[in-house]
Amino acid sequence: MGMTMTQKILAEHAGLDYIKRGQLISANLDLVLGNDITTPVAIREFKKMGVEKVFDENKVAIVPDHFTPNKDIKSAEQCKCCREFAQEKNIKNYFEVGRMGIEHALIPEQGLVVAGDVVIGADSHTCTYGALGAFSTGIGSTDMGAGMATGQCWFKVPEAIKFQLKGKLQPWVSGKDVILHIIGMIGVDGARYKSMEFSGEGLKSLGIDDRFTIANMAIEAGAKNGIFQVDEKTIEYMKEHSTKKYKIYKADEDAEYSQVIEIDLSTIRPTVAFPHLPENTRTIDEVDDIPIHQVVIGSCTNGRIEDLRAAAKVFEGKTVHSSVRAIIIPATQKIYLQAMKEGLLEIFINAGAVVSTPTCGPCLGGHMGILAKGERAVATTNRNFVGRMGHVESEVYLASPAVAAASAIKGKIASPEEVVK
Amino acid sequence: MGMTMTQKILAEHAGLDYIKRGQLISANLDLVLGNDITTPVAIREFKKMGVEKVFDENKVAIVPDHFTPNKDIKSAEQCKCCREFAQEKNIKNYFEVGRMGIEHALIPEQGLVVAGDVVIGADSHTCTYGALGAFSTGIGSTDMGAGMATGQCWFKVPEAIKFQLKGKLQPWVSGKDVILHIIGMIGVDGARYKSMEFSGEGLKSLGIDDRFTIANMAIEAGAKNGIFQVDEKTIEYMKEHSTKKYKIYKADEDAEYSQVIEIDLSTIRPTVAFPHLPENTRTIDEVDDIPIHQVVIGSCTNGRIEDLRAAAKVFEGKTVHSSVRAIIIPATQKIYLQAMKEGLLEIFINAGAVVSTPTCGPCLGGHMGILAKGERAVATTNRNFVGRMGHVESEVYLASPAVAAASAIKGKIASPEEVVK
Repeated sequence: MGMTMTQKILAEHAGLDYIKRGQLISANLDLVLGNDITTPVAIREFKKMGVEKVFDENKVAIVPDHFTPNKDIKSAEQCKCCREFAQEKNIKNYFEVGRMGIEHALIPEQGLVVAGDVVIGADSHTCTYGALGAFSTGIGSTDMGAGMATGQCWFKVPEAIKFQLKGKLQPWVSGKDVILHIIGMIGVDGARYKSMEFSGEGLKSLGIDDRFTIANMAIEAGAKNGIFQVDEKTIEYMKEHSTKKYKIYKADEDAEYSQVIEIDLSTIRPTVAFPHLPENTRTIDEVDDIPIHQVVIGSCTNGRIEDLRAAAKVFEGKTVHSSVRAIIIPATQKIYLQAMKEGLLEIFINAGAVVSTPTCGPCLGGHMGILAKGERAVATTNRNFVGRMGHVESEVYLASPAVAAASAIKGKIASPEEVVK
Repeated sequence: MGMTMTQKILAEHAGLDYIKRGQLISANLDLVLGNDITTPVAIREFKKMGVEKVFDENKVAIVPDHFTPNKDIKSAEQCKCCREFAQEKNIKNYFEVGRMGIEHALIPEQGLVVAGDVVIGADSHTCTYGALGAFSTGIGSTDMGAGMATGQCWFKVPEAIKFQLKGKLQPWVSGKDVILHIIGMIGVDGARYKSMEFSGEGLKSLGIDDRFTIANMAIEAGAKNGIFQVDEKTIEYMKEHSTKKYKIYKADEDAEYSQVIEIDLSTIRPTVAFPHLPENTRTIDEVDDIPIHQVVIGSCTNGRIEDLRAAAKVFEGKTVHSSVRAIIIPATQKIYLQAMKEGLLEIFINAGAVVSTPTCGPCLGGHMGILAKGERAVATTNRNFVGRMGHVESEVYLASPAVAAASAIKGKIASPEEVVK
């Protein structure tokens, strides 16, 4: 029996020729990542281990992105803790406010992850980097602390679901709609502790930003990781962003999958996940009039340049509905600058939206757009659990940047097709 | 005995020919203002009065600027309270996130205040509008509630200090340096319950944005209000921004002043107020090496276009020091857009600063850049009291945008003269 993409990467990083699902292994790490919430806890664990140095000063990254610029004294203290640890341990990849962004947009942009890498991050959406053909997964702060000390992490080798993509996305349909469609189909535990492996000729229709979005939300189907087969687009992206050596792993022909699911991209419609689970999906055609109060376009899921371009196409020459606060959050400083140069930010401001500093902010109810009781938001974020963006009686509807922008203009959940004629 | 500018405005709004210092009067209001912190309290007071409507739907303004975009559930509920009240009472000047800014920058920009007006605001820096020759002052939420109901407010007629300005500001010296210089001279209670009246040929050297900054900080000398004699620049500003009728009040020749202070603008140096009082001023030449962690350029004091232009001149082609987070906060959406069009935001981002949505944020320790224990900030804000921007053991140094920008680059308090050769 052959191995899946994920299994082949893990085997090589464990120094083994062959591994199979369920096996416990210890793998060498190419990157250990943390943010301002999880790193302080990981630092405590690290210190307990009595180690002097991190395993590799170039292979630890700390990104204070959740509550920054500091929302309160507590978050300021947490960032200070990260900053001092980075200085003390000579960690090269500490990213300060003004030179940073949301971790899962920043790390690939900075070239810190490439195909074939094994990455752990003390943040559940670390699975994002699977878009580049890396194995990456979210772990807890304890494992982050141990990872920083030892350069290793243990894993139970996951089995995989193969998603065989074919066809081509229709206009106004994006990676977000693909992953919402899939989660709607298999449920929030549909891929529990499995790899979601994406391949097939349909890949051609998906840009790298679409793939980041899809891999990012693998965890919302319970997956251990999401991973894309490397193609020319991946190689182009890596060459543009990184000087690291990459290695392409292909699944064996006779790899074992718990399931093979064929997705015809051309049949997917703009999709919205209703409260309070990402699996509660409906196509935009099945959505009735639902008035909204806030729109958030950003996050590690959908704060990249293609996302902002899609939103700007909808916002251009339009006005945000009077009952809506529209908050646009470019995911990194580089994306912010690019969006400014392309005139996207001007479109947002002219439409009556605000443009925030890069931050995870509202996605996790952190800051920068928290909801009051009874308020409804359409957000391009990844979770719509009860109280996720604020009050327990608020509601979050997950959607693509294009749908979110259209909703901001209409004051209710709307399709870009209604707004851009 | 004649009347001061302030006294003449108040007399006319009280329907009296003559008033004198110490007299209790009730004056008609041209505008009643509140923000997201003070308005909910004012609404409770308003409701206690049993009135159905506000006195004039066009003369109440509500600006949710302190904790927006909502930093938490509590602030979201406060904004919701403001929003619902504004809808219910048909208040025309409610400014939503995306269509707003910091109240004291927004209100004049929107043309809601002109020379000769009497304005009260439930925010101590309401004195800002004195820059346009209006009487404006901060009051409590109870007076705001009563003001919204009755269109009137009581005042004890203030006496005045006359500031006779002469000479011309040197390069890199701005309104902020002027007002810090004055507060350093007279102290934080130097103008307690008095009017600070600015006139003289030195006015020519002060742009409207300089005057807003100076009037804004009148309260930091304890003043009831700050007010500038109207000149051609004022008229030009009002014509550009407002369709309201204005009226110019000049102090009588024989007006009584408790003090007349002559200020030679040409002798003022860039000035910094050290912790923990705005009166603890030193010229930049008297400042030793003081390493800093954060720079904030913004607030109702210094978040206007001229402030951003001054900062950009210093940041251009430079890089923010690695130990510093530089946070730039354009005061309104309009200023943000203008700064973007002029290429200022691009300069900031390229330098490694972040650009925030309009908010009071860090000035009052609200959000968007709160300090940890032991951290030091240079800020263009108006107060540096203990714990104002975060931890009780943090420090705030007040300065102009040019000094703040230079300090961001040097990583310590610095003069723009050191940075721009």
